[in-house]
Amino acid sequence: MEKIGFIGLGIMGKPMALHLLKAGYAVSVLEKNKAAKELVDAGARSVPTPAKIAQGCDVVITMLPDSPEVVEVVSGKDGVLEGIRQGSLFIDMSTIAPATAKNLYELLRRRGVEALDAPVSGGQTGAEAGTLSIMVGGAEQAFQRGLPLFQAMGKNIVHIGGPGSGQMTKACNQMIVGITIQAVAEAFTLARKAGVDLAKLREALLGGFAQSRILDLHGKRIIERNFLPGFKIKLHRKDMNIALEAGKEFSVPLYGTALVAEHMDALLAQGKGGSDHSAIALLIEQLAGL
Amino acid sequence: MEKIGFIGLGIMGKPMALHLLKAGYAVSVLEKNKAAKELVDAGARSVPTPAKIAQGCDVVITMLPDSPEVVEVVSGKDGVLEGIRQGSLFIDMSTIAPATAKNLYELLRRRGVEALDAPVSGGQTGAEAGTLSIMVGGAEQAFQRGLPLFQAMGKNIVHIGGPGSGQMTKACNQMIVGITIQAVAEAFTLARKAGVDLAKLREALLGGFAQSRILDLHGKRIIERNFLPGFKIKLHRKDMNIALEAGKEFSVPLYGTALVAEHMDALLAQGKGGSDHSAIALLIEQLAGL
Repeated sequence: MEKIGFIGLGIMGKPMALHLLKAGYAVSVLEKNKAAKELVDAGARSVPTPAKIAQGCDVVITMLPDSPEVVEVVSGKDGVLEGIRQGSLFIDMSTIAPATAKNLYELLRRRGVEALDAPVSGGQTGAEAGTLSIMVGGAEQAFQRGLPLFQAMGKNIVHIGGPGSGQMTKACNQMIVGITIQAVAEAFTLARKAGVDLAKLREALLGGFAQSRILDLHGKRIIERNFLPGFKIKLHRKDMNIALEAGKEFSVPLYGTALVAEHMDALLAQGKGGSDHSAIALLIEQLAGL
Repeated sequence: MEKIGFIGLGIMGKPMALHLLKAGYAVSVLEKNKAAKELVDAGARSVPTPAKIAQGCDVVITMLPDSPEVVEVVSGKDGVLEGIRQGSLFIDMSTIAPATAKNLYELLRRRGVEALDAPVSGGQTGAEAGTLSIMVGGAEQAFQRGLPLFQAMGKNIVHIGGPGSGQMTKACNQMIVGITIQAVAEAFTLARKAGVDLAKLREALLGGFAQSRILDLHGKRIIERNFLPGFKIKLHRKDMNIALEAGKEFSVPLYGTALVAEHMDALLAQGKGGSDHSAIALLIEQLAGL
């Protein structure tokens, strides 16, 4: 079995690394990470730097907040590039810009290292249950090599295409999710002010063309006034920015995405960045004088 | 069994009336309607005016293109009001403004006639298969009286609340459907220009939070370049206007709905009003220089 280095033990990364340990893999983690002790107790080895992790492992996985953190862990001092051996596999499972993912692919390729961009969807619940959706970009051989690892962490695993296509798919996912929340928020606010029972409304709409997982789950949240994350607005805003940047890169005007990003900015300005993204409904309600 | 008058035998109304005949109801239709002969061949009686239909029936159902047509059939010369008997039930299944539905309710109530607004979702396919979703507004007793008729024409039948609430629910349905198409169109256009395989993208996204019936069905249409209706843009534009008018009436700013209505107007300006509403993707592609 391949030796795995896992960098990034946040609310997503920690349960993902635990699933790899449970599947029998030898896993190394960064000793400075505050979750390292828990991982070591579960059988992981702790190592001082990303360079040392890369040196001692066959596959390096990163699960970090944003593009700059991934670039720093790879190219920074004591970074992955300083230790990684030819023939290793690098898998970034963070949500970062597709352009950055492509750059990392090129950088590693020149060192004889294959890279996959493999962002996930499903949140903390999916990470803990091992049921994440994983969207993978990169070469077919590299995908096949990573597949058993993905299967230990997720369920709906799709090889989308070449380098960057996993991140582009994730960006599309986040756009659609954000805009669909906006749609549900507008409809629910109108219905609420018109005195329509939202639970009945949701039930009726789930039976027709308006059906979506967002109407189901986030619709329920809005009805129950439950805006505890879930997925925080400030993280979704970051992802919307990735989509908007990609829109600029490829010259695609993204009216809906931009609109929802502005609404998220308004919520950030009001100090609500830590709320669940379904709180877009709170902004529409506020604008409607509720 | 109650005697039914069915006014409006278009692509929706004709199969709905046929389902009522099949369920054993005596159905009267307007003789001037070009589909009247087909209905008469199937057992319906043909009658010269809405007033005469109302006079001879216990339940009058309308399935017409828009608010003015319904108002004309009810209040115009030889209209339903001239013939309808106290104790009859009036059911409008067209998609019209919630405010108009409430006015009709009040008008008929003063004549001792109960009214239901009962718009449908599911399109021609749903009408033909008898699987329409039906969203009903009106009094509970009237709903119970109409229920066997609804069950002959549809499947997911929800009594939402008082008069107008069925139309308000339909308006919400159309808003969410329109905005979700916009979301999918933006994502697919970005992915396409970035060289991502749309079939793989759709497959991956259907497994996560971006899942919706629109991503499934309209996503497939966009990939297959199938913009034959389906549901025509010009009809959906009419429904978006109903939603925007309701937004004004209840003071709810509907950013997303307004944006999508403008995109539909652009398509109308280009002579594409007869295309399926998934053709919003064509506009985004055009704006993106494709």
